[in-house]
Amino acid sequence: MKNFPIVKSRRLRSTPYTDRIETHGVSSYTVYNHMLLPASFKSLESDYEHLKKFVQVWDVAAERQVEISGKDSAKLVQLMTCRDLSKSKVGKCYYAPLIDDEGLLVNDPIINKLADDKWWLSIADSDVIFFAKGLAAGNKFDVEIHEPNVNILAVQGPRSNDLMAKLFGEDVRQLKFFNFKYYEFKEKKYFVARSGWSKQSGFEIYVEDNLAGQDLYDYLFEYGKEFNVKAGCPNLIERIESALLSYGNDFDNRDNPFEANFDKFVNLDSEVNFLGKEKLKKLKQDGITRKLMGVIIDHNKIDMYCEKTLLDNDNKVVGYVRSATYSPTFKKVIGIAMINKPYWDNKTQFKIDINDKIFVGTVCDLPFI
Amino acid sequence: MKNFPIVKSRRLRSTPYTDRIETHGVSSYTVYNHMLLPASFKSLESDYEHLKKFVQVWDVAAERQVEISGKDSAKLVQLMTCRDLSKSKVGKCYYAPLIDDEGLLVNDPIINKLADDKWWLSIADSDVIFFAKGLAAGNKFDVEIHEPNVNILAVQGPRSNDLMAKLFGEDVRQLKFFNFKYYEFKEKKYFVARSGWSKQSGFEIYVEDNLAGQDLYDYLFEYGKEFNVKAGCPNLIERIESALLSYGNDFDNRDNPFEANFDKFVNLDSEVNFLGKEKLKKLKQDGITRKLMGVIIDHNKIDMYCEKTLLDNDNKVVGYVRSATYSPTFKKVIGIAMINKPYWDNKTQFKIDINDKIFVGTVCDLPFI
Repeated sequence: MKNFPIVKSRRLRSTPYTDRIETHGVSSYTVYNHMLLPASFKSLESDYEHLKKFVQVWDVAAERQVEISGKDSAKLVQLMTCRDLSKSKVGKCYYAPLIDDEGLLVNDPIINKLADDKWWLSIADSDVIFFAKGLAAGNKFDVEIHEPNVNILAVQGPRSNDLMAKLFGEDVRQLKFFNFKYYEFKEKKYFVARSGWSKQSGFEIYVEDNLAGQDLYDYLFEYGKEFNVKAGCPNLIERIESALLSYGNDFDNRDNPFEANFDKFVNLDSEVNFLGKEKLKKLKQDGITRKLMGVIIDHNKIDMYCEKTLLDNDNKVVGYVRSATYSPTFKKVIGIAMINKPYWDNKTQFKIDINDKIFVGTVCDLPFI
Repeated sequence: MKNFPIVKSRRLRSTPYTDRIETHGVSSYTVYNHMLLPASFKSLESDYEHLKKFVQVWDVAAERQVEISGKDSAKLVQLMTCRDLSKSKVGKCYYAPLIDDEGLLVNDPIINKLADDKWWLSIADSDVIFFAKGLAAGNKFDVEIHEPNVNILAVQGPRSNDLMAKLFGEDVRQLKFFNFKYYEFKEKKYFVARSGWSKQSGFEIYVEDNLAGQDLYDYLFEYGKEFNVKAGCPNLIERIESALLSYGNDFDNRDNPFEANFDKFVNLDSEVNFLGKEKLKKLKQDGITRKLMGVIIDHNKIDMYCEKTLLDNDNKVVGYVRSATYSPTFKKVIGIAMINKPYWDNKTQFKIDINDKIFVGTVCDLPFI
């Protein structure tokens, strides 16, 4: 696949760290929430090997926050998600699919509860702010909604504990998964969450001060030398192996949460009121006819720029691959695909056309690792 | 500025024409509504010169449609915009700023009225569909909202009339600005509007059938040889000279419509009900303290990746440039900037830092041409 340069503009926002990641050797970008998100440094495979062994600092400012505060904020946040938040606690992070009136997916943010009347939705790539504003206006809710100037630095990889402890103190090692707390470094306080878009363990630092964040970026590299720290970014190979789903890639507003395997976050028996609840009850009762599964393809290369069709031996559609990459671990192409019902058996075989050649593959369960 | 490749994925959707524009020599991309939008072919300047003399075919599929239909569709569409649509007619296109409850801008689509109960909002780069879905759910409106599979081909430039007439018949020359009608070519009907993101005159063909659109793309080049047709795209130089504003670049959800010079589309005295009406009345009464104006800078090059500050001789902030480019017509850098009130006088001078050197410029009225 030929490479095409991305044309920067104010509309594809740079982050406070863009100059720094370019100095550290970013080699490609994607765009996420109207913002530049690094996609590779040395190479996808080299970044992957390093991430699994050491520690990386990621510019994930593109994970924008939608701040919802005020008297009716809890009501609005609950209205947007099928996950029951009635017992949610301040200081915790909740992975929560957002659902529209049709029972279809809008986004899959991490919802951070800062106070009973203040929430940050750390969003995937769609304009949740306008969904929230529309719902708030339509329901005449007493809320304030805006995008705060928060630019996340993620510290990911097995040595992330050591690096974070060196900056923020040994206490940070005790922070539990999907909890957040404020920690101090050089007389400044930082919102630190035990989270991140890899399964290699790590933290996300929600930076609210651009200059402090830029200093912090540099300190992470200075303090991290002994742990072999490098600049990195969400890694396509690692995230597919771990089945970390991506809104817009693996699922979107044409899919419902059951099709995307979000069943455990769909609390239909709860007392809480959320959008699309009756639709989801019906969808559950009727049953789904397709769902996201893994695929393994006997080949060493795939370029994804739209979904690719999987066929059986009678040329009937088995499903559609939505994300895929070569995995150095499996020595094959692995991917995430929407698979039609008759083909849900693990080990179903299919054919796929890659650059005008036919390859074979098999359906499998997720995650790969 | 160093070039960085864009990493394609399903999330940055290709269009039905992507293969074709790559064959025709697209040289860079931007991302718009989660879709690839070509940003240049031969070069910005060469594309510009050609566009002003001949005719170009543009893949602007990224101008997505939000279809709103059903009993309450007119009510919902009106609720979203400060432009009075009560006398709107089927077959006409309406440029209409969308406004939130705070009186701030959400988007600036062209609203196409297909029937009294069917509308296509041809949107700029923000997820209007979720704003519409939120408002519809909150107000319990009886509407259907979805993104239809429409992929626009624009035919732009002074010879666009000749090329379009050769395909669709002489009748198409009579189509008035911001009107649309269905025309036939090779036994297929196409929605054709007299519109487009240039001031060089032209049409937009709202293609509803991928295969027919791909054929049409090829026919436009075959029939267009005698008019020196080329592949093109919205051109940064031409659009800034013409002051065609870009959501996300020149204005966004932190700006109100008066600051963006949309006064004539803000119908506060109308009877119709729209979001933010009372806020806008107050904003108008209080008066604005900044607005979009032109700037001319004594230099031959500028790279924009975030807004740049303009200072007066006392280092007070004159304003912020949001879009800019070198103009071969003016032999200077021209741009669109948010200028603070004390500096609205045409010919106000300012200083600007471009790559660590200081250049001087002047404020001016829009458009440039």
